[in-house]
Amino acid sequence: MHPYRSHTCGALTRANEGETVRLSGWVHRKRDHGGVLFVDLRDHYGITQVVADVDSAALPLLEGLRVESVVTIDGLVKARSAGTVNPNLATGEIEVFAREATVLSRAEELPMPVAGEQEYPEDIRLRYRFLDLRRETLHANIVKRTKVISDMRRRMEGAGFTEYSTPILTASSPEGARDFLVPSRIHAGKFYALPQAPQQYKQLLMVAGFDRYFQIAPCFRDEDPRADRLPGEFYQLDLEMSFVTQEEVWETMEPVIGGVFEAFAEGKAVTPIGSFPRIPYAEAMLKYGSDKPDLRNPLIIRDVTSEFVGSGFGLFDKIVGSGGTVRLIPAPNTAGLSRKFFDDMNDWARSEGHAGLGYVTRKGGEFGGPIAKNHGPEKMAALFDALGLGPDDGCFFAAGKEEQAAKLAGLARIRVGEQLDLIDKDRFELCWIVDFPFYEWDEDSKKVEFSHNPFSMPQGGIEALTSQDPLTIKAFQYDLVCNGYEIASGSIRNQSPETMVKAFELVGLSKADVEERFGGLYRAFQYGAPPHGGMAAGVDRIVMLLCGAQNLREITLFPMNQRAEDLLMGAPSPAEPKQLRELHLRVVEPPKG
Amino acid sequence: MHPYRSHTCGALTRANEGETVRLSGWVHRKRDHGGVLFVDLRDHYGITQVVADVDSAALPLLEGLRVESVVTIDGLVKARSAGTVNPNLATGEIEVFAREATVLSRAEELPMPVAGEQEYPEDIRLRYRFLDLRRETLHANIVKRTKVISDMRRRMEGAGFTEYSTPILTASSPEGARDFLVPSRIHAGKFYALPQAPQQYKQLLMVAGFDRYFQIAPCFRDEDPRADRLPGEFYQLDLEMSFVTQEEVWETMEPVIGGVFEAFAEGKAVTPIGSFPRIPYAEAMLKYGSDKPDLRNPLIIRDVTSEFVGSGFGLFDKIVGSGGTVRLIPAPNTAGLSRKFFDDMNDWARSEGHAGLGYVTRKGGEFGGPIAKNHGPEKMAALFDALGLGPDDGCFFAAGKEEQAAKLAGLARIRVGEQLDLIDKDRFELCWIVDFPFYEWDEDSKKVEFSHNPFSMPQGGIEALTSQDPLTIKAFQYDLVCNGYEIASGSIRNQSPETMVKAFELVGLSKADVEERFGGLYRAFQYGAPPHGGMAAGVDRIVMLLCGAQNLREITLFPMNQRAEDLLMGAPSPAEPKQLRELHLRVVEPPKG
Repeated sequence: MHPYRSHTCGALTRANEGETVRLSGWVHRKRDHGGVLFVDLRDHYGITQVVADVDSAALPLLEGLRVESVVTIDGLVKARSAGTVNPNLATGEIEVFAREATVLSRAEELPMPVAGEQEYPEDIRLRYRFLDLRRETLHANIVKRTKVISDMRRRMEGAGFTEYSTPILTASSPEGARDFLVPSRIHAGKFYALPQAPQQYKQLLMVAGFDRYFQIAPCFRDEDPRADRLPGEFYQLDLEMSFVTQEEVWETMEPVIGGVFEAFAEGKAVTPIGSFPRIPYAEAMLKYGSDKPDLRNPLIIRDVTSEFVGSGFGLFDKIVGSGGTVRLIPAPNTAGLSRKFFDDMNDWARSEGHAGLGYVTRKGGEFGGPIAKNHGPEKMAALFDALGLGPDDGCFFAAGKEEQAAKLAGLARIRVGEQLDLIDKDRFELCWIVDFPFYEWDEDSKKVEFSHNPFSMPQGGIEALTSQDPLTIKAFQYDLVCNGYEIASGSIRNQSPETMVKAFELVGLSKADVEERFGGLYRAFQYGAPPHGGMAAGVDRIVMLLCGAQNLREITLFPMNQRAEDLLMGAPSPAEPKQLRELHLRVVEPPKG
Repeated sequence: MHPYRSHTCGALTRANEGETVRLSGWVHRKRDHGGVLFVDLRDHYGITQVVADVDSAALPLLEGLRVESVVTIDGLVKARSAGTVNPNLATGEIEVFAREATVLSRAEELPMPVAGEQEYPEDIRLRYRFLDLRRETLHANIVKRTKVISDMRRRMEGAGFTEYSTPILTASSPEGARDFLVPSRIHAGKFYALPQAPQQYKQLLMVAGFDRYFQIAPCFRDEDPRADRLPGEFYQLDLEMSFVTQEEVWETMEPVIGGVFEAFAEGKAVTPIGSFPRIPYAEAMLKYGSDKPDLRNPLIIRDVTSEFVGSGFGLFDKIVGSGGTVRLIPAPNTAGLSRKFFDDMNDWARSEGHAGLGYVTRKGGEFGGPIAKNHGPEKMAALFDALGLGPDDGCFFAAGKEEQAAKLAGLARIRVGEQLDLIDKDRFELCWIVDFPFYEWDEDSKKVEFSHNPFSMPQGGIEALTSQDPLTIKAFQYDLVCNGYEIASGSIRNQSPETMVKAFELVGLSKADVEERFGGLYRAFQYGAPPHGGMAAGVDRIVMLLCGAQNLREITLFPMNQRAEDLLMGAPSPAEPKQLRELHLRVVEPPKG
């Protein structure tokens, strides 16, 4: 017999009754019923109930053993009596009567419990991550993560993509975030950088004549930690295709991403593959006040600026008169809510730094609130009718400069949706946001800047760049959004050297700047570059959505803490003087203070 | 129709005759046959012959285009005449008559040719890697690499393994090579390290209750570049299993590695799965003079020390008398070779720093050379008979201290095998080398050191450590060898804290040293650690063998050069002063000179 196990702890069923088996695993729980000891024995695959009584030679050993010790049990499979069958356990029909037990590893007193998963301080959980990872939910999340990634790979290969690994020790990248640097020992004073994304390499792969590249790519950004961003590294499903249009990217990736969601949604509804809405950026900003709309929220924002032109209502009149915008956020079926609900929303808007959030209440067709009064109930009723709002619906108004009004309306839409419990938690609503602006006006620098990715192809190409107002130019750029989160972003790339130079010229960068900053890619485009495009999806975010987790650390094996420290392995740590000498570096201690 | 292609350049066959098609690709070759222009159009998938004559509107454009430009061709599929069919090309039965051509990207004068693959200086190839990668052999090698890795993944998953990604920003590891360090911005004077291997993390995964882990893992060592080692990063198929014996690791991995070899051997013979020889280290050192034996070489080294005890032959007598060893390397069927062959071998051994390589020649049963003369033809004949050597076989002798004699014999075995052309190039011969010594005597430090992996479990456990001469203890440690290359290495791990402390004690390290250097792992072993073991296979080396490539750069997408520079992206490069300030570092320029 195998020295450790004839079966895993998740394998035995009624069919094994009467068999002599050997199991190995961790002592998950112990229950002493006066002379009869029950041990839940746990391994990666499941839990099996082990029983020892006074007839068992294993009893003394098992009695003396701490939970989380590792033990081998030799025993006999017995059917449980009808009353003690546990239908929630794969092995719940049987138990193993222990004849012998061998300790493989004795556990010390635990710094945190495993069974039961009670809340525990995060620094302890991270320091003892090997215990934390034994807990049911985290263990299951990590397994699900690996399955999601494996499924992504399978679907990508099925769609004709090939996985290529790009270098991790590379040059500083122009993505814009802060690089992690790696000092070179051989070249004094020089540094490699860890890739923020394999953007340039994947484009070079297309120029090198490969096609349909993908990679589950580790990416690195030295950014200050945030709740929704782990310090250090994260993973992208990165992909690129040659000779493609953006429609082809969408048609190719919808079955992959949608398929992954369907496979792991565990019964939740997923937007059907082939019918992800494609929402132009401008429309998203109007209807949802966001380029990351949560389509589970049924509320649609309406532009009602024209309604208030010369309307006589002081504030709106003034805003509209100076080129501003008024947006309406419906608040359906709020007739039964008190005035406090509406006033609280207004207070919230002020607390967020906005001028306020006007509102109209309605009950049985009767309007309430100063805006309705000022505007006149007939005009208000006509507006409500035109917008399809009913006799018991209220609404809010976000007014101001267009961008601000849109943003406030978007936030109000989310808040109203939450407060009125309009969001169906059992859905994954996916959509493409398309036609992003190529440039935007930067108030700080008082000049035109790239809105997103400077490597994107502007719609209309070099003609648009030379003839159009830059702020009206759209890019072949798109995001994939799920439930209010951006889960992927991509574009058709600008592979024409002339167009690239012109595009950078409009943000004040010269050809020499382009050559210096993007030399590898710019040079490559001189020697036959195919039209190409692709995208990158956030693996961690997708897994988090599919696990229903609230924190990236709940779906990550060995995360660092919010201070970018690995408490388990003790990183970062001081370097040896010899290491610093070899790297031609001296540490400059920051001033104390 | 799709704006770029209705088919790829590898798709069209006779079945498409008469169809109007659109192809896009690179101009691979152009041949002008007086008014008829042939263009080989190439993409990732293949090459299609495009024809344009004076009747084609595309002719002037195609005539003026440089090779490697990217172009879209609209045309008609025609069957080639019987005499012009190219059976070496998937599309060789057809050609596309070009009606229209559109330039997608114009190529400048090329710094190196693509078609024909002529030899080119490596610095140019690396600087213009995007052109180099378009070349047939390198392109095919890279595609094969991706397929090998994908196949490994599939087989690992089929064997019940799950892929987990371990951190890349981590702590300095104790594997022994030099770490790449990554300065922390948040923690002044502290550094992360890139993993030399995920050794500690994979063991922690087992302690955390996962089972059958694998990973195609990027690994990093800041070693001086060598011919058989790329600077910077390399990939391992890394794996670990819980509750296993070493036999189980071998039985699990033989179908995976052997299966990969079979799948990509392209007709070469592979050692059958399930019958990889398991050769104890001591036997390998005796029979092959190496722990990385090339089993394609049929020569077997024999120990003939006892033959020369008191034999009267001065040199061997002296060596044997002082505890030395004599090893015999057969040189079969060398009767027809001149004395020069034997003398050259002796000269080679001296040039390698050895005292020399004695030999015996034989032709038609007659011995030649001073050793035979001195030893006496009768005794020599008896020896040859005993060893199964024939009347036309010669042999060499490697004599000296056991380790030196074994090593020289091993090198001579390789050289004799090569010189006599005994090595079957069309085979992949795989074997396990097992029972490695746990400790070895280090001449420099004059003390016992770990032979290989200090994390391995010594055979006999803590009893062996406390009772045996350390130099006689074997480890549960093994290598997988193919054609003379170590392609994988692994062990059953030492998961017992007491045994770990004892093992380190014997090399002079205290419990405190163990806690300081391997804190994460040592701590984890206190809280229930399962017996576990695994291995790591060198992905790059396996791909290199399967591609028949001589250099790792021929199977790597974007390798650095031997000076650890990425000539394409320009890494490493100086950091900005702001970056250095943020990282609390100052560069110390080395003294000029």
